[in-house]
Amino acid sequence: MEAVINCAAYSKGRRVSNIQINEIGDVLKQSDRFVWIGLHEPDEHLLEQVQQEFGLHDLAIEDAHRAHQRPKLENYVDSLFIVLRTAQINGKEHRIDFGETHFFLGENFIVTVRHGSSLAYTDVRSRCEKVPDLLQKGPGFALYAVMDFIVDQYFPVMHELEMELEAIEDKIFKEKPSRETTEQIYQLKRELLDVRRSVSPLVEICNRLMRFEIKCISEETRTYFRDIYDHVVRISEMIENTRELLSTALEANFSLISISQNDVSRKFAGWAAIIAVPTMVAGFYGMNFRFMPEVEWRYGFYAVILFTMCACFLLYYLFRRSGWL
Amino acid sequence: MEAVINCAAYSKGRRVSNIQINEIGDVLKQSDRFVWIGLHEPDEHLLEQVQQEFGLHDLAIEDAHRAHQRPKLENYVDSLFIVLRTAQINGKEHRIDFGETHFFLGENFIVTVRHGSSLAYTDVRSRCEKVPDLLQKGPGFALYAVMDFIVDQYFPVMHELEMELEAIEDKIFKEKPSRETTEQIYQLKRELLDVRRSVSPLVEICNRLMRFEIKCISEETRTYFRDIYDHVVRISEMIENTRELLSTALEANFSLISISQNDVSRKFAGWAAIIAVPTMVAGFYGMNFRFMPEVEWRYGFYAVILFTMCACFLLYYLFRRSGWL
Amino acid sequence: MEAVINCAAYSKGRRVSNIQINEIGDVLKQSDRFVWIGLHEPDEHLLEQVQQEFGLHDLAIEDAHRAHQRPKLENYVDSLFIVLRTAQINGKEHRIDFGETHFFLGENFIVTVRHGSSLAYTDVRSRCEKVPDLLQKGPGFALYAVMDFIVDQYFPVMHELEMELEAIEDKIFKEKPSRETTEQIYQLKRELLDVRRSVSPLVEICNRLMRFEIKCISEETRTYFRDIYDHVVRISEMIENTRELLSTALEANFSLISISQNDVSRKFAGWAAIIAVPTMVAGFYGMNFRFMPEVEWRYGFYAVILFTMCACFLLYYLFRRSGWL
Amino acid sequence: MEAVINCAAYSKGRRVSNIQINEIGDVLKQSDRFVWIGLHEPDEHLLEQVQQEFGLHDLAIEDAHRAHQRPKLENYVDSLFIVLRTAQINGKEHRIDFGETHFFLGENFIVTVRHGSSLAYTDVRSRCEKVPDLLQKGPGFALYAVMDFIVDQYFPVMHELEMELEAIEDKIFKEKPSRETTEQIYQLKRELLDVRRSVSPLVEICNRLMRFEIKCISEETRTYFRDIYDHVVRISEMIENTRELLSTALEANFSLISISQNDVSRKFAGWAAIIAVPTMVAGFYGMNFRFMPEVEWRYGFYAVILFTMCACFLLYYLFRRSGWL
Amino acid sequence: MEAVINCAAYSKGRRVSNIQINEIGDVLKQSDRFVWIGLHEPDEHLLEQVQQEFGLHDLAIEDAHRAHQRPKLENYVDSLFIVLRTAQINGKEHRIDFGETHFFLGENFIVTVRHGSSLAYTDVRSRCEKVPDLLQKGPGFALYAVMDFIVDQYFPVMHELEMELEAIEDKIFKEKPSRETTEQIYQLKRELLDVRRSVSPLVEICNRLMRFEIKCISEETRTYFRDIYDHVVRISEMIENTRELLSTALEANFSLISISQNDVSRKFAGWAAIIAVPTMVAGFYGMNFRFMPEVEWRYGFYAVILFTMCACFLLYYLFRRSGWL
Repeated sequence: MEAVINCAAYSKGRRVSNIQINEIGDVLKQSDRFVWIGLHEPDEHLLEQVQQEFGLHDLAIEDAHRAHQRPKLENYVDSLFIVLRTAQINGKEHRIDFGETHFFLGENFIVTVRHGSSLAYTDVRSRCEKVPDLLQKGPGFALYAVMDFIVDQYFPVMHELEMELEAIEDKIFKEKPSRETTEQIYQLKRELLDVRRSVSPLVEICNRLMRFEIKCISEETRTYFRDIYDHVVRISEMIENTRELLSTALEANFSLISISQNDVSRKFAGWAAIIAVPTMVAGFYGMNFRFMPEVEWRYGFYAVILFTMCACFLLYYLFRRSGWL
Repeated sequence: MEAVINCAAYSKGRRVSNIQINEIGDVLKQSDRFVWIGLHEPDEHLLEQVQQEFGLHDLAIEDAHRAHQRPKLENYVDSLFIVLRTAQINGKEHRIDFGETHFFLGENFIVTVRHGSSLAYTDVRSRCEKVPDLLQKGPGFALYAVMDFIVDQYFPVMHELEMELEAIEDKIFKEKPSRETTEQIYQLKRELLDVRRSVSPLVEICNRLMRFEIKCISEETRTYFRDIYDHVVRISEMIENTRELLSTALEANFSLISISQNDVSRKFAGWAAIIAVPTMVAGFYGMNFRFMPEVEWRYGFYAVILFTMCACFLLYYLFRRSGWL
Repeated sequence: MEAVINCAAYSKGRRVSNIQINEIGDVLKQSDRFVWIGLHEPDEHLLEQVQQEFGLHDLAIEDAHRAHQRPKLENYVDSLFIVLRTAQINGKEHRIDFGETHFFLGENFIVTVRHGSSLAYTDVRSRCEKVPDLLQKGPGFALYAVMDFIVDQYFPVMHELEMELEAIEDKIFKEKPSRETTEQIYQLKRELLDVRRSVSPLVEICNRLMRFEIKCISEETRTYFRDIYDHVVRISEMIENTRELLSTALEANFSLISISQNDVSRKFAGWAAIIAVPTMVAGFYGMNFRFMPEVEWRYGFYAVILFTMCACFLLYYLFRRSGWL
Repeated sequence: MEAVINCAAYSKGRRVSNIQINEIGDVLKQSDRFVWIGLHEPDEHLLEQVQQEFGLHDLAIEDAHRAHQRPKLENYVDSLFIVLRTAQINGKEHRIDFGETHFFLGENFIVTVRHGSSLAYTDVRSRCEKVPDLLQKGPGFALYAVMDFIVDQYFPVMHELEMELEAIEDKIFKEKPSRETTEQIYQLKRELLDVRRSVSPLVEICNRLMRFEIKCISEETRTYFRDIYDHVVRISEMIENTRELLSTALEANFSLISISQNDVSRKFAGWAAIIAVPTMVAGFYGMNFRFMPEVEWRYGFYAVILFTMCACFLLYYLFRRSGWL
Repeated sequence: MEAVINCAAYSKGRRVSNIQINEIGDVLKQSDRFVWIGLHEPDEHLLEQVQQEFGLHDLAIEDAHRAHQRPKLENYVDSLFIVLRTAQINGKEHRIDFGETHFFLGENFIVTVRHGSSLAYTDVRSRCEKVPDLLQKGPGFALYAVMDFIVDQYFPVMHELEMELEAIEDKIFKEKPSRETTEQIYQLKRELLDVRRSVSPLVEICNRLMRFEIKCISEETRTYFRDIYDHVVRISEMIENTRELLSTALEANFSLISISQNDVSRKFAGWAAIIAVPTMVAGFYGMNFRFMPEVEWRYGFYAVILFTMCACFLLYYLFRRSGWL
């Protein structure tokens, strides 16, 4: 895949032309234009070019090259650097794939840099181009559109995790306790913490985009970030809820393990009692006393066996009725 | 059910006339009037009409169409958009049904939009119409009346959950441990978290209605929202209390499961000891020694059986007295 | 009991006269006087009278009529409405009885309204009358005196709960685990949460009385509320401490249940081993081999029994020494 | 022990003269002097004298007479009242003894009032007198010196508690589970909560001494309280750490109890299996069949016993190797 | 090792000369120079010299001599005193070695004082000297470089701890429960708390370096501390995550211990049942009844043994199939 996915100039919310990286400088001189570039895992050389064209800060470029950042917003003198983490369910392996997207935002440009697993933003861009009256609000609106897209990707992820929790609940309350259930609870906890790590810094980022005086984002665009903020808070609540239920599930699972141990013990004790009867009877008639009348009877042996079996069945019936077996 | 439940114009706190959606514009021009509309799951077309009549923001209308929002208050330039979640006990299934109500509030209008399960607000409206001196304070008072009604619906819900907790307590401390109790604790936790998710954002919403300079709510109406605030805080406290007791109940339940396991083990051990006596005695007299005087006695067999039974009863009595059985 | 417990006018800290509700208006006109009224579960009519005499807010009067409020402080234009919860140990049943007291405070009046179980404030009033130089600071000092009395009632309550905790500790660490201990821990937790619900809002109430500009409380009286604040914080700390110890106690109790289960298992195993010896020996000599020399001996039977008993005692001694039994 | 431990006037950081309580008034008139008094459990009369000499507030004097206060700082018009709790290890009983020290601080005086168990401050005073250039900064420096001394006393206390935790760890991980360990964990938790109750309010007290405009403490002295603040924060961290480790220790202890229960069960099962072999064999040869060739053999009996023993040893060896016994 | 590792004067970001401690005064007089000194566990005498040359505060020097400080930042009139804790993995023993580094920072000097185990900063210094355009920003940049180096040392430490957690997870979910796993969980918790104690105060320190008006750090240098801040927050998040997973691991471990106890009990019960069959059969044929036809058969003995073995195998097969054994 090429590193430059898309590089276009916009005027009044409409795409004017696709341009080359080195033509950017010229375009920026035209006051009514803004440039929107989409990069995918660019090499150092490309980033340097971009840095020169837009005059970006060293530290931001350094960060944009390395992945594995924490989501953050850095406000430089006349540009903004934002790091977000993307997430999506890996269909085949039922795992969450995390990626990263970095944004450089200026008054008349926006650069998105994708790292690792994440969907392309081509769709978002074409959807934006369909509403030129919104897109003409500037690169701030483009930022909103992509961020909104990224944040919305967390809903199916959380939905998947909630489904996993429900599967675990079914296992806990309907099946007998197993090592696998415990391990699944643990793995789900791990995934939740991963998602939380990606989402929780977004609350503050949105807050700053909504409230503070950030030059590159116009007043009317700011309202839109409230929308993202709401989504982020909802996702955070879903995470917290799932986490709390998971803790309770772990404890409930534990209780049920103990109850099923009680059941095992009780069953064992019951059967031991039933088996003790014939053993005892046999023991008595195995004694070597000279005078044991029953022993002389013709059908004594069968009578004793019959009697013993009846006693066992009676015991079994009694235990059963009292819920002991 | 029709989408427009009610649409009326008020003047000096009295209902002047029922009007059509398209007459609203004319009514709003009269300075002493305000309009109160009640909608139930309106379609897109109706919402668009309403948007045009009152000049509402795109994002708010979009939200009002989708349900499954988080409770929130959005302050637009000259209108307010509020989302609340309603709750009520479903009598038949003993479940909580959640619904949503959205409000648009302007200086001379209020629109309520109900989604999902919730009681109609017709009663609230007629109660308001009985106190024209309060209703003439404007749509802010109407907002207060409906919000108060919604929040008060949470009290029976919490009461139901507290009753469930008490039922669980009885099961834990008075019956023997069962899988059902553990599952009920878990389900109650789930319901509590659902209610909390609906109620906790209300604290901030009320705070903003009480304290901040929100244009559409007059100074004297603001005092009323303190009342709602108090109720919300009380409900939150009830939730927290129930949650904390539930955690303790889960742990107590666990302790009692273990104690009842101890009981099972102890009982088993006791009976095993009692049964060991005849087995041992029988074993001894089953040995093939040539010289075993007792064996020669006429009533030896019965004497031994009698002796064994006595020994067993003595053991039983001793175990009983020491609380072991 | 009558609803009006006490109704008196004060001047320069001294009681001038006992008055009737309908004379209040006249008294209030005299600039150097203030009125202190004590009510007990007043009916609606009486509250209406009081409202008219002092010009109180509708919402406050409504609240004062209903009990079961959360402790709160409402600051109306020229009066203050305070709700406090009172608590006292019910000597006979070892339960905590909760009550409520509401205050209306103006520049020259104070009304106390008692609901449910609580001690009368007659003693507080007479103690105040003994220090006219303090009482002349106005109704703010009377408020302080009654609040101080109410808050101090929580110390014996907390003392009782701490004693209960110590009784539970003794049971946990000195007696063998029982279902009752677990239930007592749970009940104590419940009581603690009830007390906390009554006390925790007091922190903010005292804070507002101490710090904020509340008109009806003079600057020099404000210092006194710091004293109540200290007591409230101390009670809160006692609650938190007891709660934390209780959680640890529940876990410790659980550990000890498990240890005592270990003991049961170990004892059972030990006795089973001891009993296995004679069974095994008897089994061997019960075999039908033709050539078993010992069987022919005259005292073989007794020798074997003696030997078996010795073996059992040896085993018992060894188990005992190793701490297994 | 006398109530007045020390009463001296200082000028330019040097002790000028030892004085009597009733001479204080005269000394205070000299502008370059300050008075430092050390009291130990004074009676009401002495406190009244002190109150008159320095003009202290009623509430503060009342507090100074009663012990069992919460640590606090009260800022009166021209004096400061501080309550601190002291702690020290009681060598013999390995318990923590708590005491209280109260301070009255004015622009030219400091009074320390000791209650209960605590070291005397004579050493602190003489150390201060050795650095007159620091002591001439006024009573604020004396306050710093004594507070620093009090706070530093918590380090050996915390050290002792940390040693106790380590002793508990050793017991948990190296010895077999016992009731005593669980009780010790609980007692350590209790002590930790006691220490925390004494230390945690110090954070805010130091904060106010460092940051706020407190008249009696000169700007340059304020820096010194940052030092105490650091110590308090370190002690708080030690407490929190120990508390968190203690919780984990309680849970780990619990896990190990369960593991050792598993061990007991497994051992029991293993031995039961080994003992089952001879019982079964003996049973078979105890059957009364007419044709059992082995029974006729001359050494059949010994052969069977030998065979059984070999089988038992083999079983034992196999169990041992698989780690089951 | 000598106490003075390095002592050099810098001008315009380039090292001008290596100097002696006593020459510092002269160098500082030259307006465009700054001095960077690196000390390693200096004695009191050396520290006094340094104090005189730079005019440092008594309290700071006292702190710099003692190790075992809490990380902190103290802002003196014209200098800054910073304490950081360093950490590194001790390769051989798999332990974390902690050390301390103190900084004195003025407008034209920086002193680093290393205590205990830590890497030397010679590499950092030479890396700085390679970027003179950055180093000429003054001692603030040198501070940034060393702090960045110290903070980055925590990443391999956290990586090691995360690896330990994964090793523990493997043990919990793949091996059978053991005492060692529980102890390892506890030890990991201890290490995590140690690291947290070192890292958590850094958040506030970085915050103050970034935001507040600290004279010795120029505006443009301040941006760099944001970078350190990000790293600190990431490390803190790693710690919190690991801690939370560890708690869950402890609980999961506990569940699995209980499950494996269930397994032991079930296996034991199963084998006991299988062994009960021959015992019972043998008992019956050991009875002394006169008329037991089977006993007379020629191959009765072998038939019974065969039958018993078949019954045992059948039982074994049934138990196996139902997952009981």
